[in-house]
Order: sequence, then structure tokens, then C-alpha cells
Amino acid sequence: MEEMTLIFGHKNPDTDSICSSLVHEILDKKNGWKNTKAVRLGNVNKETQFVLDYLGIEAPELIEDVKEGQTVLLVDHNEFAQSANGIEKAKILGVTDHHRIANFETSEPLYYTAKPYGCTATILFEDFKRLGHEIEKKEAVLMLSAIISDTLLFKSPTCTKYDIAACEELAKIANIDINTYGLDMLKAGTDLSDFTPEELINIDSKEFANGDYKFQVAQVNTACIEDVLQNKEAIETAMNNFMKENGSNMFVLLITDIINSNSQAIVLGDTLTFEKAFSKTVQNNMAFLEGVVSRKKQVAPIILNVL
Amino acid sequence: MEEMTLIFGHKNPDTDSICSSLVHEILDKKNGWKNTKAVRLGNVNKETQFVLDYLGIEAPELIEDVKEGQTVLLVDHNEFAQSANGIEKAKILGVTDHHRIANFETSEPLYYTAKPYGCTATILFEDFKRLGHEIEKKEAVLMLSAIISDTLLFKSPTCTKYDIAACEELAKIANIDINTYGLDMLKAGTDLSDFTPEELINIDSKEFANGDYKFQVAQVNTACIEDVLQNKEAIETAMNNFMKENGSNMFVLLITDIINSNSQAIVLGDTLTFEKAFSKTVQNNMAFLEGVVSRKKQVAPIILNVL
Repeated sequence: MEEMTLIFGHKNPDTDSICSSLVHEILDKKNGWKNTKAVRLGNVNKETQFVLDYLGIEAPELIEDVKEGQTVLLVDHNEFAQSANGIEKAKILGVTDHHRIANFETSEPLYYTAKPYGCTATILFEDFKRLGHEIEKKEAVLMLSAIISDTLLFKSPTCTKYDIAACEELAKIANIDINTYGLDMLKAGTDLSDFTPEELINIDSKEFANGDYKFQVAQVNTACIEDVLQNKEAIETAMNNFMKENGSNMFVLLITDIINSNSQAIVLGDTLTFEKAFSKTVQNNMAFLEGVVSRKKQVAPIILNVL
Repeated sequence: MEEMTLIFGHKNPDTDSICSSLVHEILDKKNGWKNTKAVRLGNVNKETQFVLDYLGIEAPELIEDVKEGQTVLLVDHNEFAQSANGIEKAKILGVTDHHRIANFETSEPLYYTAKPYGCTATILFEDFKRLGHEIEKKEAVLMLSAIISDTLLFKSPTCTKYDIAACEELAKIANIDINTYGLDMLKAGTDLSDFTPEELINIDSKEFANGDYKFQVAQVNTACIEDVLQNKEAIETAMNNFMKENGSNMFVLLITDIINSNSQAIVLGDTLTFEKAFSKTVQNNMAFLEGVVSRKKQVAPIILNVL
């Protein structure tokens, strides 16, 4: 049997990473490419589980690392630090992504499709159109869920007209009311009651690097910031432990209010860099970031620019 | 007036770099994007001049560096070492390329289209088709010339069925016989009589890096390897001087016989790495590489793999 080519999104997968992997596999099959398989690099979060339950489908298989020479397709990320262990020795055949390109390298030419959109699934939606393939209900729900998740129901500054147009067309195919379904889905993701502090800071956490400088930006969505802050001390202990274990210079946890579109940041480690980046004083390890909901557009590049 | 966005290929531009820049600008205009402008990072070689003369058009304007914040579109390359001076501080809006991705980084999301084809122009050809734009004679000649150049009339192992299909369709539009026109064009590029040894090693020269290790691979096409070797000593002096000035660990000059599809390599500096890569002894600073015509596929990755 021919070796399977694995499709996966980033570590600590969010809804776009899981849904876009599954959609990529569906698209490959429609293109006659039978031996690709969606997998995942971490636990399915509650928001994504809501989507899988809605469709009555299973999550992709969990993997932790890839072997030397394994053929892979990346979605929703490219930086090796966010990818599978062993990615440096894998054979990357293609990437579909909507992030900046950095800390990424191949020794051979490959397929790479990036667009500065709000969501990877919007790029895949355009691939369906371009290739003339019919979009069925299952992939329509997967793609619209990813778009709603990444754009926080179109409220994120990363959201483009292409994301909105795709989501509206997909909602018709899926016969779904975007607002009703979207709020239910986002709220499912804000139920943090089951998480230990260690788990909470890992729900959606990404490492960024500039030379030897490493920092972590984690994000949790909530309908009430105060609820999350009740555990502030325990969360800070978990963040400090993470930094020690991983040699991070700074850890930023964004607690994002999805109703009002603001974030409370908890900042530990090199707070000076954070203060320079945002022209804000960190008090009691916290800074309130008004109108900030996007790690990719409103947090990571601001910090990278001052480094 | 709105700032112009500059489109350019790699330093020491070859026919694909020049033609794809010009075609990108034509495609942008057809898409209603008026303020993009093809430029070039170096002298036009004789092969490319043949194409420009055939069409009776001027070469793009020469630039040497880009200012901080300048918006740019890259074609036919992505590695910063091969790009304009100052590229690190430019704002890269998009890349269209057919090479491996390495030593490339942005702080923002962007458009990136890479395909593992023989030529950038083939990707642009597919963009014309996808967007439903008519291909006129001028861009047809530019694209088919780039494809013939990069694939050495389909003989290079980098050539794909997509390059051949594009070239054949473009030849019909341009009313050109691929073999007659292609051989004339390639031969125009092999006239090396005007070049000093310093110029000869810079006609089509690229730097590759792995950590601190830097090596240069230059390539010249010829109909007769012996003709070029008459100047071997002077060429070696120029190569040695180049290595000293640029701190290169190794310099490989490929003298490629476009009729028989072989290359004679002159290797200076760290010949041990070359010998390990190709399992060949370097004698009198030379090694004959049978069937080797592609720097990208048959030389650079082989060396990078042993480093």
C-alpha cells in the first residue's frame, strides 16, 4: 500500500486547524488523490467538539510526531515550532495557510498557498470553487465553523470580505443561521470549568521566536473575564512553570471577551518588552487591551516588531 | 500619487525573472491593480535580450535596493540572499515562485503561490486561466520564453507536464515554433565572447546558505564546454577573488552543454563537501556531471543535504 500523506494543523489545534485538515482530505478525494489523511497534533477543544457533534463525526486520529521522510501537508500554520515534532525531517508537499511565513524551510520546491485572509478554510473554499467541485453539507459546516471561530463571528480585525462572502455562501448550503449557530459554537468553547490552570494555558497556545528570544502567547475565549480571573494566582503559577520548563522569555495569556471584543492580558517574564510594544504599564501582572481579539494581527507582530 | 509596488525576480536575473516580472505587471493591470511596476535587480543577459528584441520592448528599470516599508511582489525567488538589498525591511505583499522556501520571513500574512513546476511563468499562465483573462501575444512570448529558458527546451529534470502544456498553448497564441525559436534564444545566451571572467561568473550566480556556511553556484550555458575552458585559469582567479570578498566556503561554476545536457563543474574552496555530495573526485578543480543541467534540482539540494 502506498504510504499515507498526513494532513494536519498546528499544535493545540483550534477549530480551523481541525476543520481545515478534514476539508483538505475531502478536497483531495474529489481531486482523485486517495491517500491523504487528516490527523491532529493535540486535544480537540470544546468549541471544535461542538462542530464534530453537530455533524456526528469523529475527530481525526491523534499523532505526536512524524518520521523522517514522512510526506505531509500543513494547514493553518507553517512555523516549525507550532508543527509536529520531527517536522524538520519530514517531506512537506504542500502548505495552505493564512499566517505570516517564518521559521519554515524546505529543501525541495513545494505547493504553497497563502492568502492574508481571516481563516484557512476560506482559502480551501476558494479552491473548491476554482476546481469546480460541489460543496456538500459536511464540508460546508466544517468550513463555516472554522471561519466563525477564527474571525469571532466577523468581529476580528483579521476578518476580510472574502471570509464573510465564503461563510454566507456556506451557510446557505448548510442551511444554518450564522449568528445562532455561531454564538452557540463560540459559547461552547468558553466553558472553562473543566480545565486545570495547566490545561487552560494550553488550550490555544503558540510559541514565537526571534533569534534566541522565545515568547508564548496563549488565548482563551470567555463571555466573562472576571470568571477566569478568579483563578489568577493558580494560572500565574502554571505560566511561570511553563516558562521555566520551556526556556521562554515571556508568557502572555489573552483572556478574550467574545461579547465585547476586548482582551485582558496576563503578562509574566519580560514585561518590559510587552510594555514597550503596547505603550501600557503592566500592573499586578495585567494589562487591559481594548479592542484586541486577534493574537495574529494585534499581539504577536506588535511584540515581534520591538524585538 | 499612490506609492508603486515593485515586482522583481532574483539578483543576476535570468529570463524567467525578467519575463515573469513583466507578465505579473500585465496580469495586475488586467485585475485592475494599476500601481505595480516590474523592475530588475541586475543586468539583462543576452538570452533575455533576445526575447526583449523579439518583442521590441525595453527592459524593466534597474534598481539595487528597496527602502524600508516599500511594498514589493517577488517572482522566481524567495531567499533574502537572492533578493534586493534591504528586503528584510520591505513589506512583501506576495510571492510567486517555483523554488524551495528558505531564509524567508515576513511579520505579516501575505499572498504566496508556489508550485513545484519548472518555471514561474507556468504558475502565472495558470493564474491567467483561473482568472479568465485573455492571453495576448506579448505575454505569451514572455511566458513561453521563460519556460524554454528554465527547462532548457523541456530537457531539464525540473520540467513538468504543466510547463510543456503551458508552453504549447502559448506557442499557438504567439504563432511561434517552439524548437526553432527556443534554440535561437538559448544560443543567443551562450555567446560568452564579450564577458570578462568576473562578468562570466556573475551571469547567473546564486548564493546558498546553511547556518554560517555559504556557497555560491553559478551557471553558464554553452554549445561547447571546451570554448569556455580556454579561459579556465582566469575564471578560477575570478572565483577565488569572489570567495574572498564574500566569505564563501565554496564556489561551484556549472558550465552546461545545452546540446548534450551535461555540465562540467569547476569547484573551488571546500571541494571535500562537493566530493561527498556527488561521490566524485575533483581533479584539476573540475568534475564532470553527466546529465546534470539543473542547479535547483541536481546541484543545490545535493550539497545542502550533506551540510
